[in-house]
Amino acid sequence: MSSTRAVRVGGVIVGGGYPAPVQTMWKEPLRADALDAAEARIRKLGDLGCGILRFAVPTEADAETLGALAARSVLPLVADIHFDWRIALRCLDFPIAKIRVNPGNLGAAWKLEEVASKAAAAGVPIRVGVNSGSLPADLKDHPERASALVLAAEREVAALDALGFRDVIVSMKASNVPETVSCNERFAARHPDVPLHIGVTEAGPLVQGCVRSAVALHALLSKGIGDTLRVSLSADMESEVLAGREILALSGGKRSGPELVSCPRCGRAGFDTHAFAERWRDRIYSLGKDVTVAIMGCVVNGPGEARHADIGITGAGDKVLVFRRGEIVRTIASEEADTVFEEELSKL
Amino acid sequence: MSSTRAVRVGGVIVGGGYPAPVQTMWKEPLRADALDAAEARIRKLGDLGCGILRFAVPTEADAETLGALAARSVLPLVADIHFDWRIALRCLDFPIAKIRVNPGNLGAAWKLEEVASKAAAAGVPIRVGVNSGSLPADLKDHPERASALVLAAEREVAALDALGFRDVIVSMKASNVPETVSCNERFAARHPDVPLHIGVTEAGPLVQGCVRSAVALHALLSKGIGDTLRVSLSADMESEVLAGREILALSGGKRSGPELVSCPRCGRAGFDTHAFAERWRDRIYSLGKDVTVAIMGCVVNGPGEARHADIGITGAGDKVLVFRRGEIVRTIASEEADTVFEEELSKL
Repeated sequence: MSSTRAVRVGGVIVGGGYPAPVQTMWKEPLRADALDAAEARIRKLGDLGCGILRFAVPTEADAETLGALAARSVLPLVADIHFDWRIALRCLDFPIAKIRVNPGNLGAAWKLEEVASKAAAAGVPIRVGVNSGSLPADLKDHPERASALVLAAEREVAALDALGFRDVIVSMKASNVPETVSCNERFAARHPDVPLHIGVTEAGPLVQGCVRSAVALHALLSKGIGDTLRVSLSADMESEVLAGREILALSGGKRSGPELVSCPRCGRAGFDTHAFAERWRDRIYSLGKDVTVAIMGCVVNGPGEARHADIGITGAGDKVLVFRRGEIVRTIASEEADTVFEEELSKL
Repeated sequence: MSSTRAVRVGGVIVGGGYPAPVQTMWKEPLRADALDAAEARIRKLGDLGCGILRFAVPTEADAETLGALAARSVLPLVADIHFDWRIALRCLDFPIAKIRVNPGNLGAAWKLEEVASKAAAAGVPIRVGVNSGSLPADLKDHPERASALVLAAEREVAALDALGFRDVIVSMKASNVPETVSCNERFAARHPDVPLHIGVTEAGPLVQGCVRSAVALHALLSKGIGDTLRVSLSADMESEVLAGREILALSGGKRSGPELVSCPRCGRAGFDTHAFAERWRDRIYSLGKDVTVAIMGCVVNGPGEARHADIGITGAGDKVLVFRRGEIVRTIASEEADTVFEEELSKL
């Protein structure tokens, strides 16, 4: 496990050997007149396994809206600041759990100092978030991008350190997988005490983004590098959270919550496992129990191939079977599948 | 690179150090009256990077339909046989490129012998496809599943070897990632000459399936294990092919075709990168060129963060910018995005 400093982000601890929280980022403008809906969605994201949630804050008005939401949110909320340090200062008037700044576009050093000073007074940590595409001007044309990312992060950490500000989390993200792995490995070797937020930036649409993030983050986590993570996808927040959870489960060697096994469907299938699995995905992963759920297409693979599942459903001709640990408990018509599955799921 | 035997699957070679072809499997029943549409879709799958395509063949009538399609297909087609060896025999009357059998459900040894004898005469290879959930009866309760998978595969390979049949490809799949990795490592160490088809079975819906497959297959490929691969997803075939391609690109250290960089969108975004990236994904990956395409949400990240892209598109307020290597070449209204993007893409 990581020997980094423990940094408190609202009610969650990042670093210090604590389990790495999964993060995601809000994908739409936050509307001041829709805070009830936002609060409810945040609760669901928490149920799904999200630990920390970030918001872009392009204007001071957005800072006020985010501040109002932060007071009601079950998850710690992070303000993501680009270009204008005054927005960071405004955020610190509210119960925001962390400020993320991008050294590549914040400007003069005294601006970061002002932010750090107010953050220290408020007990709020700062993430120094370096991105390969928005490096500080003097590092943009560095011949080796992984080095440039490390240098950009080190410069900012040193500046904060000189101010006595230690509640720092660092991220260095590239869209390229080997670069992402390399810069994090180098930084961790040189600064084993600084907690790292890891992720691949602009990783792509769902399929490519999951693959790239899994390869990069698994490589880092299995070496003990990474204290919190975000999977960036051109897709919904829920998918980002589930991808992060799955990567953690595969990298930490232990289960955390439900596991969903589902077959890819083929010409034998009498049951649409794709639609069923997508429709039930978030419900299953919000169960909060270490159970295995199987969604299978036909008698070749279910219930036989999924007899280890605590609960499973499979097509069988024009019928659907519900089974528990290989034993068929219900035989139903396919129109009843959702109703019966919910009944059996709630018995777990 | 792998030192396995080269096995010819139609016009594609598996093993022998050749680039690993990506496979997928047809997900609906194959209809004899829809072969034109199937042929066209197969062509598109080929453009997207699919090298070998498999079909379930539950009945002898399906064998005849697949046989008719195989005569017209640009890709080598594989017949997937469960339970009934007579269907495999019927398939061998047609230009099928490979037969997959599951040792767990084919029955008496003489049935496999009949299939091997006819396959040898036709010059068609056999994949011995072992699945953790459908092991032969005497191995079902083996205390260690990875060993049981290896034993089941070895038994069948030995039986075929005794018949002088060497055109064999082996797969051992579990839905559990460490088991999948372990059984393939053990088999490869003991039988370095036998080409391996690698994959995680029933890996789950899109997100979980991509993550699990990426971690397992990258672990194997980066050790030189794996001659062909399939990513099994409860999702469309195109996603399976793209996931397989992406895993190969990350594991082999070299690019193969286009790379898509796209941002996850946030509260700053004025442009729906999710919908745009999903809509353009298959078109971009079918370009057949080593180009980088960026789909970005706002001025924070595009064109700056994507200035390495050969072509990119980004939101900017209520406008959309098209850029090449960081230079803005068109400023357009968002309604024109698709039309203009196609124009610029076709100039590449």
